[in-house]
Amino acid sequence: MSSNREIHLASRPQGWPTADNFRLVETEVPTPGPGQIVVRNRFISVDPYMRGRMNDVKSYVPPFALDAPLDGGAVGEVVAGGGAGIDVGDTVLHGLGWREYALLDAGSARRVDPDLAPVTAYLSVLGMTGLTAYAGLLDVAAMRPGETVFVSGAAGAVGSMVGQIAKLRGAGRVVGSAGSPAKVARLTELGFDAAFDYHDGPVRDALKAAAPDGIDVYFDNVGGEHLEAAIGAMNLHGRAAICGMIAQYNAAEPPAAPRNLALVIGKRLTLRGFLVGDHGGLREQFVTEVAGWLREGKLSYDETIVDGIENAPEAFLGLLRGENLGKMLVRL
Amino acid sequence: MSSNREIHLASRPQGWPTADNFRLVETEVPTPGPGQIVVRNRFISVDPYMRGRMNDVKSYVPPFALDAPLDGGAVGEVVAGGGAGIDVGDTVLHGLGWREYALLDAGSARRVDPDLAPVTAYLSVLGMTGLTAYAGLLDVAAMRPGETVFVSGAAGAVGSMVGQIAKLRGAGRVVGSAGSPAKVARLTELGFDAAFDYHDGPVRDALKAAAPDGIDVYFDNVGGEHLEAAIGAMNLHGRAAICGMIAQYNAAEPPAAPRNLALVIGKRLTLRGFLVGDHGGLREQFVTEVAGWLREGKLSYDETIVDGIENAPEAFLGLLRGENLGKMLVRL
Repeated sequence: MSSNREIHLASRPQGWPTADNFRLVETEVPTPGPGQIVVRNRFISVDPYMRGRMNDVKSYVPPFALDAPLDGGAVGEVVAGGGAGIDVGDTVLHGLGWREYALLDAGSARRVDPDLAPVTAYLSVLGMTGLTAYAGLLDVAAMRPGETVFVSGAAGAVGSMVGQIAKLRGAGRVVGSAGSPAKVARLTELGFDAAFDYHDGPVRDALKAAAPDGIDVYFDNVGGEHLEAAIGAMNLHGRAAICGMIAQYNAAEPPAAPRNLALVIGKRLTLRGFLVGDHGGLREQFVTEVAGWLREGKLSYDETIVDGIENAPEAFLGLLRGENLGKMLVRL
Repeated sequence: MSSNREIHLASRPQGWPTADNFRLVETEVPTPGPGQIVVRNRFISVDPYMRGRMNDVKSYVPPFALDAPLDGGAVGEVVAGGGAGIDVGDTVLHGLGWREYALLDAGSARRVDPDLAPVTAYLSVLGMTGLTAYAGLLDVAAMRPGETVFVSGAAGAVGSMVGQIAKLRGAGRVVGSAGSPAKVARLTELGFDAAFDYHDGPVRDALKAAAPDGIDVYFDNVGGEHLEAAIGAMNLHGRAAICGMIAQYNAAEPPAAPRNLALVIGKRLTLRGFLVGDHGGLREQFVTEVAGWLREGKLSYDETIVDGIENAPEAFLGLLRGENLGKMLVRL
C-alpha cells in the first residue's frame, strides 16, 4: 500500500464527457492527523448527478475542481487513524470516493455493519439511492395507495426502487420506462405492472398504452420527452417528483422543456424538484421499512460492478449511456 | 324589456380571436319556471381563462358550445321568479353572464349586499378574482413573511391583488411586471417595491435588477419567458403558483416552455398549477380579511369598464391584448 491512485477531473466536458476529461493520478497513501482516518475504499458509487458538478456553474453543490480528485459515496475499511468511535478495521460509509485511499475526519464517516447487509447495499438500496426513491415517492410526490405511478429510468438504481416501493406501499398500477428490451424484461420480474422501451416510439403513446386511465404520480429521472408525456398523462391533482433529467445532462443547449406545461393549471398538477439531502429526517423510517422488505425477500436490487479505479471513468460514461442495470459501482 | 341580447360563440378562434368569432343574438326575455329566477345582469366579468374554453378540447371545464351563449360571472337584479330565499329585487351573483337576462335556478345564485360594497366588487376583489389571488399566494405558494414575491400580469385584476395581499401579509419585497409604463406607474402607487415593463428588454434582466437577491414566490399569470425568468431567479425552495399563461393562450403552437426547468431539482422548486374552485374552503377567511383591508383603505382595486353587451367581445379581445387596468367588466 505504498501508492494511492485517484481520478482527477482533467477538463470540463462540453456535451458528452469522454475519457479525456479524466486523469488517473498516482499519489502517496495519506497519513492521518489527529481525529482523522484513512479508508481503503472497496466500492465507490457512480451517480448521474456527478455530471452536473463537472460544469463550472453555481449549483446546490460546488462544481468539481479541475486537477483535483472527484468525489462521491464510497464504502471501505479503516486502515489507519481513528476517532469519533471509529477504529482501524471498521467498515465505513463516507463521501470521498474516486480514490483508493481516502483521508477524512472520523466524524464525517459513518460505521456500517458488513454482517447485516452486503457493504454495497449501503451505497444503494439502504443508502442515498434507496432514500432518494423512498423520499421522492412517498414524501415529495405523496403517493397514496391505489394510485398509478410512472417512473422513468426505471431499471436504474433509483427507478427500480421507486417501482418496487410503490407496489409494496399499495400503488394500484406501476409503469416503468427503460432503454433496452433486457431492462424492460427485468422490470416485469421486479413486479412492475407494465414497462416499455422508450426507443420503441413516442413515450406519449407507450405511456397511454401502459396506463390507459392516466397516471397520478410521476417520478422523473429523465426529463425531456418523458416529462412532457407524463404531464399529458397526469390525472387531476397529479404530482411529479423531479429527481433527475439525465436526458439533458449532456445537451449543449437545454432541450425545449414540456410544451404542454400549461396543463398544470387545469389539471392542478404539482411539479416538485428535490434532493435527497433535504429528507434526512426520513432516514430512520426508511431504513426500518426497507431493511424489513429486504429480510422478507420482497425487494430486489441490481448492481452493475466495474473493477478497478482506472475503469471508474468508463463506468461513469457507461452510466450516462444507460449501460447499467441497477446501481453502478466500481470495485477497488 | 321585451328582448334579450346575448353573445354567442360563432366559431372557434384559431390563434388570436377576432370579432368574427362572436355573434350578437337577440332572443326573448326568458320566463322563470318553479324555483327559477330571471336576473337582469348589470355587470359581467371578462376573464382570460375564457380563451381556453373557446377551444374544442377536453379540459377542467367543458368547452363553450358553438352557437350558444358564452357564460361567466355576473351580478344583476332579480326581475322575475324566486326561490331558495331569493326574491325579485335582490342583487345576486351567478355564473350566466354574456347576456342581458339570465334564467337560472335560484339555488345556483348567491345574494349579495349592494350596500356593503359596490356590486362590481363581488366580481373582482371580493369575488373569484380576489380569492384566486389570495388562495394562490397564501395556500398554493404558501408565502411567508419576509419573502420576495414576483407576480406577472401584475396590473391585472388578479395580479394587482396578489401584490397588495403579499405586502399586507408581510412580504419582504414585491415585484410586478406589466405591459405599459402607465401600468408600471400604477403598480408603484399600489405599493409594489419594484415594477417593470416587460417590453423593455429580457424579463430575466429586469427581474434580476428588481430582485437582486432572488425571489421566493412566483405568481404566474403569463407563462413563457416570465416563467423561465422566474425559475432562474428562484431561491432555494422557491414556489410558483401557476394561475395562468396568457402569453400562450393564442399561440398556434405552444411555445418552448422553460429551458431551465432542470433547475427545479437543485433549487428544490415547486411549480403548482391551481384553480380557484379547489380553494372554496378559504372563502370565509378570505372575505373577512379582504373586507377588513378594504374598510381600512389598505387595498385598492382597479376596474376597466366597457359599456353594452354588444361590446363584450371587444372587451374580451382588449383583455387578451392587455388593455385593461385591473378587472375587465362589461356594464349592461
